[in-house]
Amino acid sequence: MAKQPKHLDDLFHDALKDIYFAERKILTTLPKLAKAAQSRDLKAAFKKHHTETEGQVERLQKVFKIIDAKAQGKTCPAINGLAEEGAEIIEEYKGSPAIDAGLLAAAQAVEHYEIARYGALRAWAEELGLEDAIPLIDETLEEEKATDQALSELAESLINQQAKQEEAA
Amino acid sequence: MAKQPKHLDDLFHDALKDIYFAERKILTTLPKLAKAAQSRDLKAAFKKHHTETEGQVERLQKVFKIIDAKAQGKTCPAINGLAEEGAEIIEEYKGSPAIDAGLLAAAQAVEHYEIARYGALRAWAEELGLEDAIPLIDETLEEEKATDQALSELAESLINQQAKQEEAA
Repeated sequence: MAKQPKHLDDLFHDALKDIYFAERKILTTLPKLAKAAQSRDLKAAFKKHHTETEGQVERLQKVFKIIDAKAQGKTCPAINGLAEEGAEIIEEYKGSPAIDAGLLAAAQAVEHYEIARYGALRAWAEELGLEDAIPLIDETLEEEKATDQALSELAESLINQQAKQEEAA
Repeated sequence: MAKQPKHLDDLFHDALKDIYFAERKILTTLPKLAKAAQSRDLKAAFKKHHTETEGQVERLQKVFKIIDAKAQGKTCPAINGLAEEGAEIIEEYKGSPAIDAGLLAAAQAVEHYEIARYGALRAWAEELGLEDAIPLIDETLEEEKATDQALSELAESLINQQAKQEEAA
C-alpha cells in the first residue's frame, strides 16, 4: 500500500505527540532527580520545574484540542535516552561530590531538547496559521528557557560552594 | 566493593567520553540526513556540518590529551535516541513534502544536545583550571550555535518556498 504523502500539519501533529510523551516522561523523572540531588537548592529547582511541567502538559492538551486531535503520546526515543543518562548519573555518582553537577547537566540536556522541539512547533504553528496555539507554545518555550538559565546560574553557585568545601576539608 | 567517590574531574572525563561517542555517531548520521533531504540547501548544510564535525572530533582528541586520557567513547543513550528520531523521519516522511522540515528539526534537536553538553564541559573546564581545553571547547560551542542559527534561518526559507510550491500546485 502506498503511503499518503505527509504535510506540515502531519509533522506538527507527530511532533506534538512526541513532546507530549516526553513531558509525561519528564514528570516521572524529575522526582528521581530531586531525590538524588544533595543540594537543597537543586532539589527545589527540580520540584519547581515539576510543577511547571504539569502546566506544560495541560497546555499541550489544549493544543491537541485546537487541531481537533486526541491528546496522546508517541514513544520519543530521544527523551528515553536523555532520561537514561540521568539514571546513569544517579547510579554512578551516588554519594559522590560531583553528583549535583552531573544531575544538573543531565537536566539541562533535557531542557535543550525541549527548547529545540518547542522552537520547531512554534515555527510550524505560525506557518499553519494556528493562531490560538502560538501563545500556548510561547509560554512553555519561555519557561523552558528560564529553567535552563536558572540551572546555569545554580551550576555556578553550586560549583563554587563545592570548591570551597573541598578546600576546607 | 565500595565505589570510589567521583569528583568533578571524573565527571569531566565521563562527559568527554559521552560527547566523543556522540560526535562520531553524528558523523555516521549526517550523510543519511543529507541523502534523504530534498532541498539542495539543506543537503549542503548537512554536508558542511559533517566537515565541521570532523574538526570537532579532532578537538576532543586534543582535550583527552590535555587530561592525559586515551580518546575513547562511552555509549551515549541520548544521541542514540536522537539519531533514532532522525531515522524515523526518513522512514515515515520519505517522498513527503514535509520531510525537509522534519529532518531539519531532528538536526536542531541534536545541535541543542551538543550545546548543552559543551556548555557543561566549558563550565567544568574553567572550574578545573584546564586553561588549554577552554578555547578548544569554545570553538566547537560557537560552531554548534552558529549551525543551530543557520538551520533556523534555513527552516524559515524552506517553509516559505514549500508554501509557495503548494500554492502554485
